[in-house]
Amino acid sequence: MNRRRTERMIVTRVDGAGDDRSARRGPDDLIVEEPMSIQFDGTLVATTMPTPGNDFELAAGFCLTEGITAGHPVTGVRYCADGSAVESEFNVVTVETGGRAPTPTPRLGNVSSSCGWCGSEHLDEICERLDPLPDVERIPLDVLQTIPDVVRSEQGLFAATGGVHAAAAFDRTGAVLVLREDVGRHNAVDKVVGAMALASDLPATDLGLFVSGRASIEMVQKAWTAGFSTLLAVSAPTALAVAAARRAGLVLAGFVRGDAMNVYAPERL
Amino acid sequence: MNRRRTERMIVTRVDGAGDDRSARRGPDDLIVEEPMSIQFDGTLVATTMPTPGNDFELAAGFCLTEGITAGHPVTGVRYCADGSAVESEFNVVTVETGGRAPTPTPRLGNVSSSCGWCGSEHLDEICERLDPLPDVERIPLDVLQTIPDVVRSEQGLFAATGGVHAAAAFDRTGAVLVLREDVGRHNAVDKVVGAMALASDLPATDLGLFVSGRASIEMVQKAWTAGFSTLLAVSAPTALAVAAARRAGLVLAGFVRGDAMNVYAPERL
Repeated sequence: MNRRRTERMIVTRVDGAGDDRSARRGPDDLIVEEPMSIQFDGTLVATTMPTPGNDFELAAGFCLTEGITAGHPVTGVRYCADGSAVESEFNVVTVETGGRAPTPTPRLGNVSSSCGWCGSEHLDEICERLDPLPDVERIPLDVLQTIPDVVRSEQGLFAATGGVHAAAAFDRTGAVLVLREDVGRHNAVDKVVGAMALASDLPATDLGLFVSGRASIEMVQKAWTAGFSTLLAVSAPTALAVAAARRAGLVLAGFVRGDAMNVYAPERL
Repeated sequence: MNRRRTERMIVTRVDGAGDDRSARRGPDDLIVEEPMSIQFDGTLVATTMPTPGNDFELAAGFCLTEGITAGHPVTGVRYCADGSAVESEFNVVTVETGGRAPTPTPRLGNVSSSCGWCGSEHLDEICERLDPLPDVERIPLDVLQTIPDVVRSEQGLFAATGGVHAAAAFDRTGAVLVLREDVGRHNAVDKVVGAMALASDLPATDLGLFVSGRASIEMVQKAWTAGFSTLLAVSAPTALAVAAARRAGLVLAGFVRGDAMNVYAPERL
């Protein structure tokens, strides 16, 4: 069984312009992505392209943060594999609640001719499912400013490949409790949340969630579902993500770079 | 009808550390994301969260690059809307081939207990559907090096928000022919490909495709389906993306920064 997370390939490094250009062939480590299907109580709910590793966390975290578990405890997570060493058998993970959760609605397939919904309706739908977060003591800004560097220094796959996202749970002292890397930032977040769920460490009431990329509505939804008090993004949030964070009572900071950051939620610090 | 692509919000800009910290409230422009559903000949095939605008291009490009049109020409693209000014009616776009293409397979729903597939099988599946690209004259490295700056200088939404991806089709003189911005990089690529499809400008045989982020297998698949000769990414490719590009005969360059870049495919320049 080969579950490599990086793969060495021969690539050509081009440097300089015009007559001064050099081209050197040499080995380079690239990040691996592999298809993985997630089943929930016997129903296929997603096929994603994660970096291998922490598969159970990813599957459990996905089902939790997408609202598929609907509040029911996960009773088991297993590979499709029967123990034989066929690699593809490790690419289906089944999350079980023993049939307690409702059957997930297939998102694709025949639909009526009814029309769609807009961003504010999408947000209303999330707000119906999730209660506002409890009021907790805020994580100091000084601490938030330190997190990107701490996470980066612990990112082994990023150091090797330069091409991988990170998500991390951290506490109010700035300690990183759970760190996961993945080629997809959604997957990285699901792995962090899944790891905490499987360790019975949720809700993450007093903790912050760091993401190495942008903060879309999906990131806010995932942080909110897991109960984090703060979402810290290296890059920009979307307008809908800010609206959602303000409804959730989630502190949302973005563009955290050096000593500077933008705080988008709450509207008044 | 309000189809804003940015939204102005009041945010708090924090600068400096400790006693020297300042916090100033002020307006900031954020990128908008809105749910959009794509139907194909009456079947829902995807719900995505794009930045509004170029909706028909996105829908047509998605159906094309995901192989849903299966080589059949698109005969129509329309909103669910009946002409009344309800915003949500613009969030479902229907792509039609007049029923000529096969009904898309729902990707979610009940599945048998069969196991998954690994990366190389996923790649084999793509290779079965797509022929290798024709041999064409390569776009000079000097030209490739200029593209990121040209695209950035034309990115109006990035200048406003700092948080949006770009995709662009360019020719061997370095001219950018089609540029689209979107909060999701997949959406940006689909909009470029869709714009070219609706203008009957495909296959993009002599052209390059620029993407502002990483190059995953999906990006290679989209570029390959549209017939681009080159895929240029600002950031890292995955190992599977490189394997796919080598099978496709697609030139794949990444980490294009200043005068330097890595060429991942072909294996020998």
